[in-house]
Amino acid sequence: MVNVAIIGVGTVGKSVADILEKNKKLISARAGKEINVVKGVVRDRRKKRDVSIPLTIDINEVLEDDSIDIVVELMGGVDEPFKVIKKALTKGKAVVTANKALLAYHRYDLQEIAGDIPIGYEASVAGGIPIINALKVGLSANQILSIKGIMNGTCNYMLTKMRDEGVSFDVILKEAQELGYAEADPTFDVGGFDAAHKLLILASIAYGIDAKPEDILIEGIEDINEYDMDFAKEFGYSIKLLAIAKKSDHSVELRVHPALVKNSQMIAKIDGVMNGISVIGDFVGETLYYGPGAGGDATASAVVADIVEIVRAGQSSPMLGFKKPHESQILKLLPAEEMESEYYIRMKVGDKSGVLADITKILANHDISIETILQRPAEDNDKAMLLCATHTCKEKQIKQAISEIEALDALEDKISMIRIED
Amino acid sequence: MVNVAIIGVGTVGKSVADILEKNKKLISARAGKEINVVKGVVRDRRKKRDVSIPLTIDINEVLEDDSIDIVVELMGGVDEPFKVIKKALTKGKAVVTANKALLAYHRYDLQEIAGDIPIGYEASVAGGIPIINALKVGLSANQILSIKGIMNGTCNYMLTKMRDEGVSFDVILKEAQELGYAEADPTFDVGGFDAAHKLLILASIAYGIDAKPEDILIEGIEDINEYDMDFAKEFGYSIKLLAIAKKSDHSVELRVHPALVKNSQMIAKIDGVMNGISVIGDFVGETLYYGPGAGGDATASAVVADIVEIVRAGQSSPMLGFKKPHESQILKLLPAEEMESEYYIRMKVGDKSGVLADITKILANHDISIETILQRPAEDNDKAMLLCATHTCKEKQIKQAISEIEALDALEDKISMIRIED
Repeated sequence: MVNVAIIGVGTVGKSVADILEKNKKLISARAGKEINVVKGVVRDRRKKRDVSIPLTIDINEVLEDDSIDIVVELMGGVDEPFKVIKKALTKGKAVVTANKALLAYHRYDLQEIAGDIPIGYEASVAGGIPIINALKVGLSANQILSIKGIMNGTCNYMLTKMRDEGVSFDVILKEAQELGYAEADPTFDVGGFDAAHKLLILASIAYGIDAKPEDILIEGIEDINEYDMDFAKEFGYSIKLLAIAKKSDHSVELRVHPALVKNSQMIAKIDGVMNGISVIGDFVGETLYYGPGAGGDATASAVVADIVEIVRAGQSSPMLGFKKPHESQILKLLPAEEMESEYYIRMKVGDKSGVLADITKILANHDISIETILQRPAEDNDKAMLLCATHTCKEKQIKQAISEIEALDALEDKISMIRIED
Repeated sequence: MVNVAIIGVGTVGKSVADILEKNKKLISARAGKEINVVKGVVRDRRKKRDVSIPLTIDINEVLEDDSIDIVVELMGGVDEPFKVIKKALTKGKAVVTANKALLAYHRYDLQEIAGDIPIGYEASVAGGIPIINALKVGLSANQILSIKGIMNGTCNYMLTKMRDEGVSFDVILKEAQELGYAEADPTFDVGGFDAAHKLLILASIAYGIDAKPEDILIEGIEDINEYDMDFAKEFGYSIKLLAIAKKSDHSVELRVHPALVKNSQMIAKIDGVMNGISVIGDFVGETLYYGPGAGGDATASAVVADIVEIVRAGQSSPMLGFKKPHESQILKLLPAEEMESEYYIRMKVGDKSGVLADITKILANHDISIETILQRPAEDNDKAMLLCATHTCKEKQIKQAISEIEALDALEDKISMIRIED
């Protein structure tokens, strides 16, 4: 018999208790032992919760109780759960967490403190999709050449609606908030930060690389408008918020930003609130993992899978996938300005003669060659939208070109730029 | 240091040796130990192979060698590899196999003989996609409500070409054979048997159910023609060879057959030689796994992942996913005639008055209601093609109706039936 305590009994915590109750016999057959949830820790005991487990507001009733084998951390935040997990590990308790923010900052600390004590965190990335396990175990034979993931359901829902129904960012954000897909303050989702946390976790398993959110390129979907959507449609692209990890010989680039993706790619076919992660390995080629990236039951499914794995055999593989430092190949984070991409830029210009000549000259000066250019009348009659896709160049080239173009008199607005991922 | 021997050094065996050589340092960091391929067993030593491992034709040089820790079985066949694996397990050696035919017949025997000795078989289903691990570990919290898989790349390649290019089964089969996607005798692939072997393996992990290929419904894609493809296109379907496991309260249905799948479903979007498996769990909902289902490197990626997992920690979960018999719920195999589906039937009829009345009367007599009916002129001028989709009914109803319709004078040919999966 194995005793589990849940710290933080919200939507996910309640689902964890529900699964372990409803599928008790099946899970016990799979795990080899009966698993019981013996306590839940909550902040406010008066809040109504439809759970049958005993609740307490005193976390020490869990941490000091030697009969509790596994602690499930679902508190949210960073500093407080970090303290709680450290204490649980010190007491020899296995830990399961769904806390991506905590892991984005402290995954290497936790790995070191844990030593041989299992820490499961399948639920921290892409909810119900077992992507952590796929990367740690299923793809372990491979150099991971790239990871491209749609890992934020809110953004994917909004971008899908903008494409299919032609609605604007502001309108769809309001709708997403009403449906409960987006928070009152949506920055964490639409700004790309949530996806960045998840990307950092996957990058550790793929590359053994330690990086924090502030080290990597993060851009959100706030500036995408109907001109971008039309351009994408016209040239066979979808716009997706992608979290990307790419390996070159001695470096890894990590970035989160909206991207134009060819509709023929599997990742472009992942619509609505669903998540999907494409991984390319040097031997296996491309595999893709699709499913619900959020929601109480889907997330709890991953939490319980970790519990079962710990009960079955302890942790089979080291927390972040490497049994020893990968000395043969210390990968460095590629600085953002050195990254390469094709770019789409949207420019609103006044109807003055010579402006197209000025713009193309600036691009040429920076060695940026143009793949496609499209001019559309802007909403205000005497203005035009110039939509331009470039061939591959470095981030620093396009950034310099953009700032020079923005300095032209004819430019009516800030330039909007979206990377093209082929 | 861990010593591995490969029995059967063909395309996959060579790739296994290549991966362990090329990614040696990375794999050693992930596994915690250096992994060396110390011997390969071949049938014919004179055959040219581009591998650097020592070869032998004497299998006992592996089985009797106590320094060999892991045996990789890539011989093909059923009886001979079964004997070899049994002997390896008796000698205490861990085993990794990609042999789906062997597992389709002997997986429970092997599980029993192995006891605590690890047997890995990730490569036996869907090549490079880590679906075994996803089912055993990632989804272990769930009752598996259904599995629907495209698990034969040959069939999927052919069906995709038939849809996109309008070519006939015979023409595309010849092309697939020339490209090396189909064997000279294609029955094993196009007849659905390969997919059935894989389905049986997944069904054991999902349900703990023991069944052999001869116990389940298996139909191939040989009878699909351009009329079926046109009907599918017209109503927004793709035709896919699906391997399906579905759970009801006390039974599981297992079947392999071509199916009409709505284009909006993710599984319909898996084209060409690629494989994809959709799994629905009671809590997680739908997750889908996509990737290369065959090929030396992709299959070898899965073989090496099993080796790494064995080196890391032995086997973390029991071979077929259940630590003890799942007594709470002994699931029985649903007899084929009790299965339910919507059906599409194609009938070639002579141009006689009253034939449509006769057919619809027979369907009504068997309580089968019609969802869609479409009449097309057949190639031979005075004949017609009747294409009909039904609402849900039992297999025995449609089978009886078909045999009665086939007995009508107006019928020019055998009726072709395809199930509709929604």
